[in-house]
Amino acid sequence: MNENHLTFSIKKKVNSARAGILKLKNGIEVKTPVFMPVGTAASVKAVSQNDIEKIGYKIILANTYHIYLRPGLEIIEKFGGVKKFMSWEGALLTDSGGYQAFSLSEFTKYKDHGVEFKSHLDGSSHLFSPEKVLDIQHILGSDIVMPIDDCAPYPADEKRLKDSLKRTHDWLKESKEIWLEKKYNENQALFGIVQGGVNLKLRKESSQFAAELDLPGYALGGLSVGEKNNEFIEAMAVCDEHLPVEKPRYLMGVGSIPEILNAVYNGIDMMDCVLPTRNARNGQVFTSKGKLNLRNEKIKFSDEPIDKECLCMVCKKYSLGYIRHLHKSKELLAYHLSTYHNLYFMFQFMKNLRESIINDTFEDYRKKWIGIFKAY
Amino acid sequence: MNENHLTFSIKKKVNSARAGILKLKNGIEVKTPVFMPVGTAASVKAVSQNDIEKIGYKIILANTYHIYLRPGLEIIEKFGGVKKFMSWEGALLTDSGGYQAFSLSEFTKYKDHGVEFKSHLDGSSHLFSPEKVLDIQHILGSDIVMPIDDCAPYPADEKRLKDSLKRTHDWLKESKEIWLEKKYNENQALFGIVQGGVNLKLRKESSQFAAELDLPGYALGGLSVGEKNNEFIEAMAVCDEHLPVEKPRYLMGVGSIPEILNAVYNGIDMMDCVLPTRNARNGQVFTSKGKLNLRNEKIKFSDEPIDKECLCMVCKKYSLGYIRHLHKSKELLAYHLSTYHNLYFMFQFMKNLRESIINDTFEDYRKKWIGIFKAY
Repeated sequence: MNENHLTFSIKKKVNSARAGILKLKNGIEVKTPVFMPVGTAASVKAVSQNDIEKIGYKIILANTYHIYLRPGLEIIEKFGGVKKFMSWEGALLTDSGGYQAFSLSEFTKYKDHGVEFKSHLDGSSHLFSPEKVLDIQHILGSDIVMPIDDCAPYPADEKRLKDSLKRTHDWLKESKEIWLEKKYNENQALFGIVQGGVNLKLRKESSQFAAELDLPGYALGGLSVGEKNNEFIEAMAVCDEHLPVEKPRYLMGVGSIPEILNAVYNGIDMMDCVLPTRNARNGQVFTSKGKLNLRNEKIKFSDEPIDKECLCMVCKKYSLGYIRHLHKSKELLAYHLSTYHNLYFMFQFMKNLRESIINDTFEDYRKKWIGIFKAY
Repeated sequence: MNENHLTFSIKKKVNSARAGILKLKNGIEVKTPVFMPVGTAASVKAVSQNDIEKIGYKIILANTYHIYLRPGLEIIEKFGGVKKFMSWEGALLTDSGGYQAFSLSEFTKYKDHGVEFKSHLDGSSHLFSPEKVLDIQHILGSDIVMPIDDCAPYPADEKRLKDSLKRTHDWLKESKEIWLEKKYNENQALFGIVQGGVNLKLRKESSQFAAELDLPGYALGGLSVGEKNNEFIEAMAVCDEHLPVEKPRYLMGVGSIPEILNAVYNGIDMMDCVLPTRNARNGQVFTSKGKLNLRNEKIKFSDEPIDKECLCMVCKKYSLGYIRHLHKSKELLAYHLSTYHNLYFMFQFMKNLRESIINDTFEDYRKKWIGIFKAY
């Protein structure tokens, strides 16, 4: 298999937690564990590509479903892919779009050959099949691509989970074949998705199935969808045990600070979530003392920054009282400043987390931050 | 009179057009003619203070009415003024709030002692009197302050215009007395407002009245409110003739590129308008070829910048096709990029306009740009 699309090396391992380096095309090196900001429609909401780069991010996620529907593939193809379209010089990971087709559309049907859905924008009918989502992601030009899968809701009975697993596995096998056959493997790394909900037997089976396909990386789906914290952790632990240690593992759509810490503790290298950006727009920011509501009456006179320990340009320049005013007045600058801070905070948090693995202080780090964010 | 708050010097004059320097407190020098971005509620919408500074602006406008109502004076006072509140290191001009009290509120009544109105936010009752708006602007800490006036609508009959003039003049006289009495003149420059609609006799009378009060600067109100272009120009010409040549003149709420050119032609030094920022948010940008609609289907595949001749960071990095997509998808980045470009364009436009006065090519410059933007 051509491995030019991705190499992964682990620099330090503490129990299951790993500090690694993910090398992608064009010399892009991503230090792991990594948090990937979400740029749903080819834009990380409320910040510019320069901002993301300046903060330090080397990889972002975009959503296939959204970009496929708008601006559409004809435009993306003309521009030579999403990265060129949005002038993003870092790396790009895309999901398959299957999850959004299911959650955002009406009239969605899982069929054996794929997911049928109607666009939430104009009601037009579409089919996402294993081949179709790889073809789309090839046009998107993503560095890391996802196969279509069937993510069961929580809770789901064993029948539903088994159906999900069967479909996910059949589609993964087909995806790998298409990926090789169409030579997408020359430029794009396909990850295998593991499902199974919180059924540990099925998680094991799914991990083993995916592992056997020997793919460049693996993704854990169907977690952080409402399950209990111990269920979430146990499911990850089983995957950790049965996935190849030398391949990168990506936990999809996660998450909060405690979830990230527990994920890394259980061998996860990559994560993405809208939490820092969406919360920012809703006036919630992360600080070294926990979360903070920027619309709170209590801070209206405060000339202190969002976080005294933060060195971001927002904390250097603007006061809580001013940012609160911007939120109360629905000024666009409110969303920009809050998002910039949260993304900066997350980047520093992940950087320090990685350092703690390298310095053998990860367990202290994990406990400290779970303590600070426990109420989250 | 203490003149520390403002000095104005004219470097070059071509007929009525002037290239000057406005020196404000803290060593801030503003080259005139100047366009001032509008930061209604202590934020120029969709850009940061760093952006405005980086583009080159040294002075912005904020609206007394909005800031008075939200966040309110208690908060602004605690922060030591609007500039400290918003971390803006340039200069600040505020209007009196009278115009917004009239146009945004319900139940507004012009009385001899001021304007009574109810807040558009919560319906609370307020009075803006000559003294009140100076007291407010003193708390706001503006470098240049405006007296309350009565801006007649267009069209207005002579009776209405005469009432407006009487009230505006009475209030201006009272404002000057308060300004001196309360020693606001030590830190803040009060401008005299000239009204009179498009009645040239009344414009002359108003200019002479204001001139006799010997104030640090003069503002032209009641223009660009729907009158014909020749009426607009003639009214300015009369003011130009009767206002002291050595004092800065500010045309309130103007305007479009042709209006600005005609204003400068008629001796105006300062202008403000929401046009570049509001239009940007609506997807309209200014270019060296005129205005451009960023939602236009025609540009969906375009990998060209907004303006090939523009050196702003938006034009250096982003394509029309991408920015169109951002507008169509209502991404916040759309408003940021478009606003940044328009403010950059306006700054360069004013810089080159000033150069043309200094180089004796203003007439060519004026004709060229009126030609380009005539349809605007």
